[in-house]
Parts: sequence; structure tokens; C-alpha cells
Amino acid sequence: MIIIIKKGTPAEEITRISQELQENWQIKPEVVVGRHHTIIGAIGDTATIDPSIFQEISPWIERVLRVEKPFKRASREYYHGQASEVIVSTPNGEVSFGEHHPVVVIAGPCAVENEEMIVRTAKRVKAAGAKFLRGGAYKPRTSPYAFQGHGESALEMLWQARQATGLGIVTEVMDTVDIEPVAEVADILQIGARNMQNFNLLKKVGLQSKPVLLKRGMAATMNDWLMAAEYILASGNPNVILCERGIRTFDCQYTRNTLDLAAIPVLRSLTHLPIAIDPSHGTGVAAFVPTMAKASLVAGADALVIEVHPNPAQALSDGPQSLTPEQFDDLSREMALLNQVINDRVQPVPALI
Amino acid sequence: MIIIIKKGTPAEEITRISQELQENWQIKPEVVVGRHHTIIGAIGDTATIDPSIFQEISPWIERVLRVEKPFKRASREYYHGQASEVIVSTPNGEVSFGEHHPVVVIAGPCAVENEEMIVRTAKRVKAAGAKFLRGGAYKPRTSPYAFQGHGESALEMLWQARQATGLGIVTEVMDTVDIEPVAEVADILQIGARNMQNFNLLKKVGLQSKPVLLKRGMAATMNDWLMAAEYILASGNPNVILCERGIRTFDCQYTRNTLDLAAIPVLRSLTHLPIAIDPSHGTGVAAFVPTMAKASLVAGADALVIEVHPNPAQALSDGPQSLTPEQFDDLSREMALLNQVINDRVQPVPALI
Amino acid sequence: MIIIIKKGTPAEEITRISQELQENWQIKPEVVVGRHHTIIGAIGDTATIDPSIFQEISPWIERVLRVEKPFKRASREYYHGQASEVIVSTPNGEVSFGEHHPVVVIAGPCAVENEEMIVRTAKRVKAAGAKFLRGGAYKPRTSPYAFQGHGESALEMLWQARQATGLGIVTEVMDTVDIEPVAEVADILQIGARNMQNFNLLKKVGLQSKPVLLKRGMAATMNDWLMAAEYILASGNPNVILCERGIRTFDCQYTRNTLDLAAIPVLRSLTHLPIAIDPSHGTGVAAFVPTMAKASLVAGADALVIEVHPNPAQALSDGPQSLTPEQFDDLSREMALLNQVINDRVQPVPALI
Amino acid sequence: MIIIIKKGTPAEEITRISQELQENWQIKPEVVVGRHHTIIGAIGDTATIDPSIFQEISPWIERVLRVEKPFKRASREYYHGQASEVIVSTPNGEVSFGEHHPVVVIAGPCAVENEEMIVRTAKRVKAAGAKFLRGGAYKPRTSPYAFQGHGESALEMLWQARQATGLGIVTEVMDTVDIEPVAEVADILQIGARNMQNFNLLKKVGLQSKPVLLKRGMAATMNDWLMAAEYILASGNPNVILCERGIRTFDCQYTRNTLDLAAIPVLRSLTHLPIAIDPSHGTGVAAFVPTMAKASLVAGADALVIEVHPNPAQALSDGPQSLTPEQFDDLSREMALLNQVINDRVQPVPALI
Repeated sequence: MIIIIKKGTPAEEITRISQELQENWQIKPEVVVGRHHTIIGAIGDTATIDPSIFQEISPWIERVLRVEKPFKRASREYYHGQASEVIVSTPNGEVSFGEHHPVVVIAGPCAVENEEMIVRTAKRVKAAGAKFLRGGAYKPRTSPYAFQGHGESALEMLWQARQATGLGIVTEVMDTVDIEPVAEVADILQIGARNMQNFNLLKKVGLQSKPVLLKRGMAATMNDWLMAAEYILASGNPNVILCERGIRTFDCQYTRNTLDLAAIPVLRSLTHLPIAIDPSHGTGVAAFVPTMAKASLVAGADALVIEVHPNPAQALSDGPQSLTPEQFDDLSREMALLNQVINDRVQPVPALI
Repeated sequence: MIIIIKKGTPAEEITRISQELQENWQIKPEVVVGRHHTIIGAIGDTATIDPSIFQEISPWIERVLRVEKPFKRASREYYHGQASEVIVSTPNGEVSFGEHHPVVVIAGPCAVENEEMIVRTAKRVKAAGAKFLRGGAYKPRTSPYAFQGHGESALEMLWQARQATGLGIVTEVMDTVDIEPVAEVADILQIGARNMQNFNLLKKVGLQSKPVLLKRGMAATMNDWLMAAEYILASGNPNVILCERGIRTFDCQYTRNTLDLAAIPVLRSLTHLPIAIDPSHGTGVAAFVPTMAKASLVAGADALVIEVHPNPAQALSDGPQSLTPEQFDDLSREMALLNQVINDRVQPVPALI
Repeated sequence: MIIIIKKGTPAEEITRISQELQENWQIKPEVVVGRHHTIIGAIGDTATIDPSIFQEISPWIERVLRVEKPFKRASREYYHGQASEVIVSTPNGEVSFGEHHPVVVIAGPCAVENEEMIVRTAKRVKAAGAKFLRGGAYKPRTSPYAFQGHGESALEMLWQARQATGLGIVTEVMDTVDIEPVAEVADILQIGARNMQNFNLLKKVGLQSKPVLLKRGMAATMNDWLMAAEYILASGNPNVILCERGIRTFDCQYTRNTLDLAAIPVLRSLTHLPIAIDPSHGTGVAAFVPTMAKASLVAGADALVIEVHPNPAQALSDGPQSLTPEQFDDLSREMALLNQVINDRVQPVPALI
Repeated sequence: MIIIIKKGTPAEEITRISQELQENWQIKPEVVVGRHHTIIGAIGDTATIDPSIFQEISPWIERVLRVEKPFKRASREYYHGQASEVIVSTPNGEVSFGEHHPVVVIAGPCAVENEEMIVRTAKRVKAAGAKFLRGGAYKPRTSPYAFQGHGESALEMLWQARQATGLGIVTEVMDTVDIEPVAEVADILQIGARNMQNFNLLKKVGLQSKPVLLKRGMAATMNDWLMAAEYILASGNPNVILCERGIRTFDCQYTRNTLDLAAIPVLRSLTHLPIAIDPSHGTGVAAFVPTMAKASLVAGADALVIEVHPNPAQALSDGPQSLTPEQFDDLSREMALLNQVINDRVQPVPALI
């Protein structure tokens, strides 16, 4: 349930309500300070409680609402219909993800191949406007005989690229035992599509403090995906960015996946969490990436994840879907142009509460 | 096979080559005059013929190429890598569909309900910039007990709306026996998703002269779809516009279909035919239509098909996905703004020949 | 709504109730005489009528029930939870399809290629136990350049095979204009997967008297499919056999389609109509057909549609999925063995009323 | 590559060949003793080696073949076209999975709820013929708020059930850190559908000795699935059983998943590994389970995984798809009957080598 607090309520009253929820109702309250309202999230065994009973706890309570969706903390209602933001510290300063902020570009190669290439790529994508460098240290590969990533030594190379450019680092964590070393280097931990329902991994990234980029599983419904986010939120980490990267359908002759761009307005109406799009995995074909990146921007994406490799033909993985630095420069220029006419990038969403 | 003719070839030489193909090789040649080249399409039993033999027919032949794809006339190679255009006569003048022309908007209600509503809607969408009125006279409905369209009398109402506004008319034909009466009123015949592989219908709309808007079937691969277009082209009608309207996937809780927007760059690389997007059926939810319409525009759509109804809540069909005239006005304004920055709307495509 | 009549009700009382429905309620009643009950189907504008009002029409009415599913005549409730049967006259006598009858085998080539081959195949499949010969005169082919069937002359060849063997004929009709000539030869009209939602075709096969084998569309849900059957039933033809032939999914590397065998128990719980399985199209691979045919038999299929060709390697279409006559003989022997242990082939279904 | 050894080759010669491969070619050889042939599997960097060079290593080498499929150890060629078997020790003796052995039934509740219920269920399913008890200690649940399994204490309860009945135990492992405690109790480790591409988990279950039941991911192609098995095999554990449990498709109104039964003959032609079917998850509806279990048996499944709960209506998870013990008894009797006519359960597969 969510308890909407009246404007002007004294802080001590909010504390008192919270305490009463905890003591009398065994509910761990979460205070969410939004743009227009403060709400108290009351998640727990509330299914049998009549909301009107909560209403009586204080005259400062405006309204008490039950969240009907299976995802609670991830639901837009939980922020009283507003969007939340994920603020990430990077050496170059704070970067904010969310519908009231400019689109954030995360770029870089599929895998970290060597220090020279990752530092060089980082400089190039920074120059074109990217705020984060992506690059895989641990790579989930369909074949056990394929390149599996350079692991720990790749983390060290990412650190060097971070030092050299000040870009934030986004890299994937695949196993609970790797969370700690990865979180030492990464500014955002990525959970890959194949691990979207690796629930132990979700719980454990929820117990640490680095933000999480949660990719959509290739057969995940919206509810599945938001429930996966809910695992992280319920463990205590509120900083989750959702990333659409294409779903698996019958149509895969000319693209690797089917990029579900309507996920942007759908998610906007369902959740307060920021939304990223990965057109590189979404199409699997470099020639299609700029078109879909621009379409994503116009559709309201809060972030874009784009694979850039200094020499795609020689890439150890995902070469066919990687842009060259020159192609990425061109795309960045085109996106800047589009940004001028979408000053107010935010899409209106249906009122939910 | 396609025979690329050198620049400056005299017309009579092209005629002579065509005759030789017909007489000596039993191939019906099709001369395609493109922007940069003239080519002769040689479709027939050519699988066993060595292209170098054709090369020797004339010194004016630049090159002879085999089209490897199963679709021949629909392939981009058939236009030597260029786009074709479909030019439609309407009372208000010619309207051209294709990648070198401004996006064409086709708008109107799902079904024609009565003369007053269809004329009123036509006026509104015309004022907002639409060039064509859509509206169903014959409606393919999942249930035999649902409203099936007003049939012939609806055709008469569409005619009135055409007279009143000068807009071109796009309406669906579902049965071979209806082609003639529908083609008397419609400027573009629509083949619906459920009939995309109704091969007799395809052959017969290929035998008449009105352009055809061919919707993608809900489980049609790109090849299936282009082969359906090939049926129409092979019957003699070169004026086919492809229309993506969402495919059926596992994800249908919050949208009716999954709109496959990457179809635009994919088709651009495979075919010369113009590409339309229908975000109304593609999402099934009015609140998501403007976002996806703008994304389609930026992704390079040549046309947009958008459902508009004067009173969606009272619509006899597809109300939930119809915009109000006011919402359509707003969308039109936003699209005009985007159009200013995408002067060169055309996406670069990989060189094919 | 359905009106269940008490056992022992005099015929004239049933007539009287029917008349009252028609005269006072503008409802066209359909009397269904089942194994255990007689019911009167009352389809029409009954959504707003209180069932208790109908109850009062006669003391001989046991119960009045609303059919909640969108399909009415096709629903199992419409037969008061029982199965219906489709009885087809063939030169060799009546053949019954339905859960209380032995499985019916329909076999033959994809397309009728010449008289000699079709007559020879008919004799072979008859000898192995088939009751019907299948063979396409009009073929729906993805490519306009592929063999389209021999059309009318193939109908003549089917007629010869029917004369020679006494087998019933099952052949596809693709266009409303072909229904009459096809129905002159065929004992069962087939509607193919691609035409499952060709609603005009459905309506018109519903207006003639030959039974219809309705294949499932490749992206058709159970409801879509049963609504397609409802079109035929609502037009007046009660003899519809449903045929599962594989759906389109992401998995098509080793099979042409995904054969949805659970459709058998699902349909058994939803509808009274007989259920056929086509493992040839369902897998697309001859080596997989016998396994899936036997599994279908055990799962309760009322009929099997199996492609058999005298020389699959030379077939004009669908060779890779056709059994040789020898393979079909072997399969028939294996199925006979299985039949001995599934004396009561009928699967128990959850009580519905 | 695989090296087929002539019959009658002395053991020391096989050792010598193996040594030469290791020393001169840096290839770790794996000797596979099949029913009819002995082969040496040579997996490694062999893409550039000419097979004829290996041929010359010894006159006792019959033939050298390259495995073209991406999966090597899992391919049927790797066993020279034969099936492998997985032999599992249980307190009641060895149980063999594979196409030359009777079907093995694994039954039990979704989750272990308490000791009394799991011991009671174990006794019931043993009496009906099951060889293994299934039951979840760690449960992958879509919602973080749903029952997550009793974890370690449930492992203890499974141990008690194993002691009480002598049945082998099959239970799921979800995290690399849980492998050791789970393997202490389980006779077969289950990898669930959601973890099918949790590659670290696959690698680590490949490093221990208990057999692994690998469920198919809900959007996994055959190749994806066999590559997941390859991860386990390549880590050194040859005992993998594949388990089909339904895939995710557009059709999910009446069943939870689409059970892909044709997976049985497809896998039979691709791999030597044993094949299990889980009709409980495959349909999600108890009423459909017996039908699909019997169909699976006839289609050639080597094992069946069936959910049985003493009181499905009160189950903490998956109640709707669980059979009662009585329903399981009935099914077991029906399967015994079918088994009598499928003495030679094995389906012929196309010759592969």
C-alpha cells in the first residue's frame, strides 16, 4: 500500500507515522520524497488490511492506496505517478538518468580486448558525448568454446579507461561471487538478458549500493521484467535502470532480435524507473543501429546503450553490430540535432492516481 | 536476372534487347527507368542460364546480375539499389510515396459508421495535414457476431467524403468479388494482415491498376511479406506500399501487437518499395500511438496510417486505439517540428549492387 | 444462451418452446440432440436477458445457461459438455469423426501431380487403412513462381481416384469462386492455415453442406481458431473438423513449425468439435512424422492428416515432409498396435456444466 | 573432430593414439566406448587441421570426422550415431536413463513444504512406480514476495524422504554457492529453465560429479540448449539429461507454455543425451498432464517429470499443475499399459555418420 502525505506535513509527523506502521503493523515503511508529494510505501503483508484503517493513523495522511500490480516498488503508483531518477557519480561528475534529464549515452565495445583499445575507444566515445563506457570483462557466450572475456584483468583495463577519461563504467556481472570485484570498478552493474531471472544474483546486487542496469530477458513479459527489478528494489537498492535489448520472435532472418520500442511508452505508464534502449543487441546489425537509436531517442528513451569498436571486423565478439567511432560520431551529431526539437523529451503519460 | 543498361543507350537498342529476350529466351522483359540507370528485368526460367550469355546480346549492356533473393521484382536489386515511388492520383492532386518524398499521412476511423462522421473526420484530418482518408467498409472481425462493416453503403459514404475534401481514399478489400466495387471508390486498395497470404486476392489486385497497401501478416517473416508483394508485382501491378502493423509475439498484456519498427531499415535494404507504419494497430493503445508515430517518422517511414475517430469511446470498432481529432492535431504539429530537422529523411542503405 | 431440456420432454413441447423464442424474443433456436440431453441453443442478442426469464417459458426446461466464451456454437457447453460428431458420406460408406469413434486417417500427397500418381497413392493409402485421400488442386504457395497446383484438371484426377478406390476426398479451397467446383468433387473442403481468417471464405463454406476441415492459422490463438469455426457454424454448416498443423514460434531451425499437441486436451475442454492433427506440416520433416502421429493418436486425436507421396524426392511440393507408401504402411501397423491398448481413446475432460 | 577406432584395436594402441594427440597436437582426447565402436573425441583448436593428418597417426584408425555442429560433445556424431546413457546411483539401486532403457519417472511436489508431506508423497509416488522424487528446496519465483522455498531445511527433509523410500532425489540448484550442499543430498542436480544460460552455474555443475537435469530455457532454440549442455560436458561432467518443459509462444491463454513434443525426435537426431519431458510445466494445467505424459511416452521420452502433491489446492506453489496421488496412480497404470505395446520404445533415427 502507499500512503500519500499532505503537503506541509511536519517531518516529525512522517517519522511518527513510520514508527507506528513498524511497531503496530510490522511493516517496514519506505519514505519516498517526490517532486510534488511525499509518500510512504508500506510493503508487506497488507493484503488483508483495510486501507481506511491506515487512513486513521494521522490527519496528515491525504490518501491510502493499494497497489494492484504484482510489482509494488517498481510501479509508477509508488512514486505517486511521477518518475524517479537514478543519479550516478562518475569521475566527471554526477550523471542523472530519468525522464526529466537529457538522454544519457553509454557506448563502447562488446568486450574489453586490451588496454590500448579500451582506452582509445573511451576517448573517442567521450569526445562524441558519451557519459559512460561499456565493455564486458565477463562475457556470457552461447558456446563454451567462444571467447569468455578477459575477466579480472579486463576490470583493471576498464579502471585505466575510467582514469584516463573520467567516464563512468558499465560492465556486466554474471555470478554472485563476482559482484564485489566488479563493483569496485563499475559505476553501474549490468545484469544481462540471460540472467534477468537469476534471482539470487538480483537479490545480491540489491544488497550493494551501485546502480544496476537490468536488461530485459529475451522472452520476458513486461511483468516478468518489472518483477525482476522488484527483486533488486526489495533488497534495498532503489537505483535500477531498465534496458530493452530486443526480444526473441519468429522473425530473425535479418535481425538478431525484435527491438520492442513500444516498451518505452508502456514502461512509462507502468513504472517510475528510467528506461534505456540497446539498439545494437536489439537489431544485431550495425547498419540498422543509427536509425533505431534515433527512433529510441524520439520515443523518449532516458538512455542509449550503443556498441562501438575501433575495428568491428576484428572484434572478438559482436563485431557485426558494432559501430565504428566515425559512425558513432555521425550518429551523435544527428542525435544532437533531434534533441534540439525535443526540448521537452518527456511523453505525457495517462494519469495513474 | 537484371540487365543493367549503359547510360546513353539509344531507346531502339533497349527495344531490340527486349525483343531478343522475348523471342530467343521466352522471357518477358520489364524495363525499369531509375534515377541513375535503366535496367531490364528478366524474370522467368533463368536459373540455368549463364549471365555471361545475356551479356553478349548487346555492347550497350553494362552488367548482368542474378537476383539471389526469392523475391525478384520486389528486391532492391531490381531497381539497381534505388528506391521506387508510388504516385497516387487524388482529387487534390498527385501524392507520391517513397524515400525521396515527404512522409504521407493516412488517417481516419477503423470503420465507416455513417456519412456525417466520415465526412467530419475527413475534414479534420485533412486540416491537420493528412493526404488520405482511411475507413473500413468491409471489416475483418474475429467474431461473426461483431459489426462487420456497412459494406457497399459505406463505400458510398467514402465517396462523399472524397468529394467533400479531395482526400484520397484507402479502404480494405477482403474478397476477390469485391475488388471492382471497392476500386471504383478507393484510390488505394488495402490488403489486411489476415489476408496477406490470400494468394488469389493478391493475384487479382495485381491485375487491376489501383495501388495496393499491403499489410504485414501477424506471423509473416520479411521474406513471406515480400513474396506476397511479389504476387502483386508479378501480376502486373507495380504500385505496392508495404505496411508494418505489429506482429504477434508472447508479449501482449499491455499492447495488442509488437510493433517491429526495425522493419523500416531492414526493408530499406531489401526492397525498393515504399514503407508505411501503422502505430494504431501496432500498439492497440491510443496513448502509445503518438510516441510510436514520431519514432516511425524518424526511423524513415514513407507513410503513416493512424486511426482517428471523432469519439473513440463510442466507436463501433477499435475505439481504444483511435486518437481523437484533437490528439491527432497535436501529433501533426509535433511531427511537423521533427520534419524540420530531418530534411534528408532518407536513411543511408548498404550498397547492394 | 443454452436451454437444457428435461429427459422425456414431448417433441411438441420442444417445438412450442422454439416457437416462443422465435416469436417473443426474435431468437433463432437451434435444437441439439445429444447423447444424454436435448438442448436448445439460443444465439442472438441475449446479453441483456435474464436467464431466469427463459426458465419460465416451460416446466420442461431443466436449466438455462449463459455461454460466457466468445465462441458460442463451437463451445462444449453448446453440446451440454458432450462431443459432437461429423459424419461424412464416402463411396465406401459413412465415416464418423469424433471422440467416440476410431481415429480417421486422411493421407495423400501435398499436390495432385497427375492421374496415375494420385490413383496409385490412393490405392496404397487405402490398403494401409486410410479412409480419405488428401491432395491439393489449388495450392497456396509462398512464391508466385512456385507450382500453384493443377487446379480444375486436378479436381478431375481426384474424382478418378475417388471412383477407383471409394475413398473420400479432402482438398483445399482458396477462393470463394472455387467453392462450387471443389465441392462437386470433395467430400470434405479444407480451409488452409493462411485462410483461417479469410472471413468471406468462412462464411461461404458455411452456406454449403460439405463438411469443412479448418486448419489452424500459424499465429492463431485457441480463441481465434474457435471464432473462425464459429463463422462457419453461424452460417449454418455444423460440420467442422479442427486441424492443428503447427504454429510459428522462434524455433524453426530443425522443424518447419512447432506442433502444439496440447491443443488436443485444450480443445477437448473448450469445444465439442472433432480434432485432427497434421504432423506432416506440424514438423515439416518426414523422419519426425511417425513419432508425432503416434503421439497424436495417444493424445486423443480424432483424425490424422498425413502426407504420403510415391516418390518424395521428386514431389512438386512438400517432398521433405512426405512419407513413402512403405513408411506409411509401417506407421499404420504401429498405430494399429497402439489402438489395441487405447480402447477407450477418449480423454476425460473436466465437467463443464 | 572424432576419431573412429577399428574393432579389435588393442587398448594400448588407443592409449598411444591418445598420447600422440595430447603431445603433438595439444588436444585433450576423450575416449568414448560405445555399443558398436570406440571413438576418441578430439575437441580443441582443430578447425585448421586436415582430418587426413590424424588418419595417419595409426593404421587402427577407421575414420576421422569433423563435427560440423557448434555443439561437439553433445552431438550424436560424438557417440558415432549411438545414444549415451546416464546411470544414477540411488539407495534402491542404479537407474539408467537412455533410449535403450525403460522410461524413468521423476515425481513429486513443486516445493518441499514440510517433512511429513514430502515423505508421504515420496512413498505414494514410489508405490506407483517412480524412481526419483522431485521437490524444490530453492525455488525460482517471479515475485520476490512469493514463497522462495525452505532452502537448507528443505534439503534435510529431502534427505529424510530419500532414507525413508530409497528413491533418488532431483532438486534444483540456483546459485554456484549452493552446489555443494545441494549435491550432498541430490542424486541429480536440476538446472531450471531460467538458469539455462547462467553459464557460470553450468561450468560449476560441470566440475562436480552428480548428474544434471538441464531444463530448456523458455526461449531457447535447440542449438542454445545443446550449447548449454556442452558447457557442462566441456567442464568434465558427461552425465546430462535434457528436459523439455514448454516454450514461450503467443499462445498462453489456456496453457502456461507450449510443450514442444517434437523436441524428442529432433533431439534424437542431434544428440546422444537422454531426453526428459515435463508435462506439468509444459501445460501448467493438471487436467492436461496425463494426456501429454502418455503422448511423451509414445514419442520416445527417456524420462518424465511429473508434479504430484498430496493436496494441490493447498500447495504453496504450482498447485494448478499438480496431480493428486490418485491421479498419478491412474496415469501410472495407463502408462504401464502403453509400455506393453512399445517394447522397443526406441525411434529409428536417420543415419548420421
